[in-house]
This record gives sequence, structure tokens and C-alpha cells, in this order.
Amino acid sequence: MIPTKEEVIAAYNRVKPFVHQTPVLTSTLINNLTETELYFKCENFQKMGAFKMRGAINAIQQLSKAQQKSGVVTHSSGNFAQALSLAAKNLGVKAYIVMPSNAPQVKKNAVRGYGGIITESKPTLAAREKEANKIQNKTGATFIHPSNDTNVILGQATAAVELLKKHPNLDYVVTPVGGGGLIAGTALATHYLNPACKVIGGEPLGADDAWRSLQSGNIETNETASTVADGLRTNLGDKNFPIINKLVPEIIRVEETEIIAAMSLIWERLKIVVEPSSAVALAAVFKKKAYFRNKKIGIIISGGNVDLRNLPF
Amino acid sequence: MIPTKEEVIAAYNRVKPFVHQTPVLTSTLINNLTETELYFKCENFQKMGAFKMRGAINAIQQLSKAQQKSGVVTHSSGNFAQALSLAAKNLGVKAYIVMPSNAPQVKKNAVRGYGGIITESKPTLAAREKEANKIQNKTGATFIHPSNDTNVILGQATAAVELLKKHPNLDYVVTPVGGGGLIAGTALATHYLNPACKVIGGEPLGADDAWRSLQSGNIETNETASTVADGLRTNLGDKNFPIINKLVPEIIRVEETEIIAAMSLIWERLKIVVEPSSAVALAAVFKKKAYFRNKKIGIIISGGNVDLRNLPF
Repeated sequence: MIPTKEEVIAAYNRVKPFVHQTPVLTSTLINNLTETELYFKCENFQKMGAFKMRGAINAIQQLSKAQQKSGVVTHSSGNFAQALSLAAKNLGVKAYIVMPSNAPQVKKNAVRGYGGIITESKPTLAAREKEANKIQNKTGATFIHPSNDTNVILGQATAAVELLKKHPNLDYVVTPVGGGGLIAGTALATHYLNPACKVIGGEPLGADDAWRSLQSGNIETNETASTVADGLRTNLGDKNFPIINKLVPEIIRVEETEIIAAMSLIWERLKIVVEPSSAVALAAVFKKKAYFRNKKIGIIISGGNVDLRNLPF
Repeated sequence: MIPTKEEVIAAYNRVKPFVHQTPVLTSTLINNLTETELYFKCENFQKMGAFKMRGAINAIQQLSKAQQKSGVVTHSSGNFAQALSLAAKNLGVKAYIVMPSNAPQVKKNAVRGYGGIITESKPTLAAREKEANKIQNKTGATFIHPSNDTNVILGQATAAVELLKKHPNLDYVVTPVGGGGLIAGTALATHYLNPACKVIGGEPLGADDAWRSLQSGNIETNETASTVADGLRTNLGDKNFPIINKLVPEIIRVEETEIIAAMSLIWERLKIVVEPSSAVALAAVFKKKAYFRNKKIGIIISGGNVDLRNLPF
């Protein structure tokens, strides 16, 4: 049902030559504030600035030569658009990216900079899907979903593999929850490499579809998703939810002010640039301080792509 | 005349247990833009957020037990106040810090957080010196200058020792120039460990005392020092100038807009939080692009203590 340990290890070996082995940082002050031992796995230092590179590079490599020749296609206005473009470029494959017409110019430039071929669509999910479909039909490109794709999930698992190899005694790993690819991959890796370690999600209250999904046992969606953590507005899918439902015991919801405070603390004390989405995991640790007290906790810092002229603090 | 190789190595061994061996980061994009190979030595990740920790820890250790018992004193509103406080705390020594009464509350809190004992003075150099003098007379504490002290200079040298051990083939090391402690220490370490490598300074045009000092052969001062790089407004001194004059062939002056552009680029591409002063070294590389083309260049990122609510971009 869920991917095997062998598949996780194979993805790790497949992804390794194409990604940075990102550093793990610590802060005595943040440890003192949380009364825990925190290990920040810094995927903001990953190529293109986020963990999404891992899933993209794994998924493209799993295509046949014939499929690779026809290219890949996705729709995204965020990090996966850049990740698929750069991963495809590294593997000599064409990447077609459907972006909403209202996507910021800086994001379009980044995708183009990595060699992605952009098609603009109206800014609705239906329009984006239709446009991606048209490209598939016209070019034979393979559609790759940003988070609900088993090979993408296995690629995202490799960040936790690196973390757990370096720190085999963690009690918890906490990740933000958006589309579900990162937490599903992290849960898989942790399940196989350190079964005693629990994977917990952090999610904005303003987009708490994953929390509600764990409660109901079904995939719930956000009617509206209002949060500064713009990477976490998406819903889970049928490939990652079964993994999350089975392997993630809890998702912790946090307020917007808590996200911004955690983000600010990470910038100030770790001296690193992280996206609001990345701060949600640390905010979750603060939210349930008694629960985490004295534990060793890995935190996946998901990315660092943020508009410096438009910071929330 | 200038400190020996043995003194540099001894300082390295003395400082090592008390500081982070900070990482060296690279960016393909910034390499492409500058047409060089850049190696960023990230002292923003150092304890208390700047290289100044190194000089403070070395200087206090060089005091006799009796001197240590009476404590240390300095006047600073910047990173050295925090560095001396934390270094003293680590060594079980009292640190008296004279700060101008108009220093930001956040800086006073940081010094107090590291255990420094603050005395406020009027915000003039004369008033600060007088206050420090009074504390010396009253407590027997030893005055330690933030940059014009041989043991401080030897401590600052240890960042370059780490860099050159890891990257022995650099053609240049570029540092910002403020009070002169960092560039003098870097020049010493480089002179002994890689004599073929040149140490170059970057300095704001609005506080170009070091550039003028190299021209005249005497210590020149800034009548007014107007620059966003607030760590670089100070003048050289009689301990560090002879080293700089002998071992630093060139100082490159940069405009304010160039400092801010370089700072913004470092944040965006390296995903790290750095002070404006730190960006001056990269700005200098951009300024003399033809001179540095195709060279391997170490850049000392001096620190990351910056007010996130008051960024220059």
C-alpha cells in the first residue's frame, strides 16, 4: 500500500547527486525558549531554495527515456514551478509550466531563468488544469503533480533521510503541511529509519484542511485559505493522504501571529532567510511546549523563497 | 614588528574551543554574475552573530588570572559589546560595557542577555572613554579595545585560518574595513598560510578613512561617517594600521547603492541574514569586476546582527 523502505533508499541514492546535502543548524537560545533540542534541516539552502527540488528530480528520473524526450508539465505558481524547471534542465528534459496570469513577475522570471517554458492561464484551478491538459495532448509531456505523486513524495523523503542519518536519536520530526508531499515523504523516511520517532505536522489555522482530514479520515478541503504561509494553502491528495493518515499521529494548528513570531525568531537567531511556511513547524513546537519539553526534535525548514520587499514583520 | 606565524597559530588553537567553525557557502548565480569563484565565510553564524567573538575570546584568555579576576571593560554600541560580554561569561570573567545612552534598547538587552554589566554614558567618544576610565580605576578591570588590540587582531585572524585551511588555493580574500581588526587579522593569517593570496578591503565611500590612510601612509580619520554600513564608521589604530599598511595592497571604495544591492543579493541567493557591513566586501568585487575576473575569492561575511524591522531595501 505505502511505498517500501527499499523505494525510499533508492530515491535517496537517485536524488543525491543532484541536490545539496543541506546543513543542520542549532540555536542555544531557541532551545532555551522551547525547552527542547532543535535540529533545523535547512532546505532553504537547497537548489532553487526549497525541498521541492528533491521531488522533481526523483520524479523526472523515474520516467522512461521516451517520456523524458517529450518533456514534463505542471501547473504551479510557487516553488514546484522552479523545482521542475531546474530539475528538468539538469536532466536535459523540457519543462512546460502553467502559471496563473497574475503570478508575480519575479516568479515568472525565476522559472524562465531555470529554463522552464511558461504558458499563462486564467488564475483558477480549472483553467490551470485545462491548460496543462492541452500541453499534454499537444506535446506528449508527462504531467507531474507538485505534491500528490508517489515519486515526488519519495523525493521529498530524502531530506528526512539526510537528517536522520546525521541525527539518529530524534524523538520527533516536525514539518509544515501544505499539499502533503513533504510530510508524507518525511513520515515514510522516519517510519523506516527510526520507527520510534514521530512525525508531527504544523498547519496554519487559516488553512487547516489536513488537520480536519486527520479528524474525519477523509480528504477535507479549504473553502478559503487565508494565511501568510502561502505555500500551505493547498489540499492533500489521494497519494499522500493514506501515508499521512497512517503515519502522522498529529497535526498542530497555529495562528498567524505565531507563524510570524517564529519566522522572525528564525531570521534573528539562526541568521537565515526562510519562507513563512517554514516557520509553521517551529510555531507548532511553541504551541505545544509541554508536549515537546526536553525532546530532541528535527524541524524541516522547507524553503527560503520570500519577497524581501514584502516581509510580514 | 608584526605578530608572528606562531602567534597566529596559537590564537587559532586558543580560540577554537569557544567558537563555531562557521560554514563556507557558495552561489552559482553570484559566481556567474561576478565571473569569479566566491567562497563566503559565514561569520554571521558565529556565536553572538559576528566575528568579534573571536577577538574577544582570545584577548580575555591572554590576561593573567589576576587580571581576569578584576574583569574587562570596553566601550561599544555594536557587536564588540556583545562579543566581550559573551566571551567573558564563557570564561567566568566580569565584563563592564560602556554604552552611549542613545544606543537602541535591543542592543542593550542583547548585552545584558550575555551577562554584560552596562554603564551608560553621553553619546560622545570622549564621554565613553572617560566612563571606561572610571570603571578601570574603580574595579581594576582591563580595558580591551574592539579593534586596536594585538590579541583582538590575532583572534579575528582565526576566521581566515579556518577559511584558508578549507580552501588553500584562494587568489584573494576580501573583507570589510571598519576599525581595522578584521582586515589586519585576515591579512596576517593569509600572509603566513598562503603568501600568494592577496587581502583586499572593501570600504564605504562615506567612511573611507582606511583608503585615505593607505594613500597617505598615516592614520586618517572620518570627519563625518555617513553609511548604511554602521559597523564601518570607525577609524584605524596604531596596532592594526602597520599590519594593514604592510600587507593589504588595496582598499576598494563602494557607493551606498552598491552596498545595498550586494546585501540584497546575498539575502536572496545565499538565504542568509547579513549586516550591511558584510555586504561591502561583495560590493567591492562587483566594483572591480575586471580585476577579479576568473579568480578564486574568499569573502568574510562579518556578521548578521541587523534590525529586521528597519532594512535598507
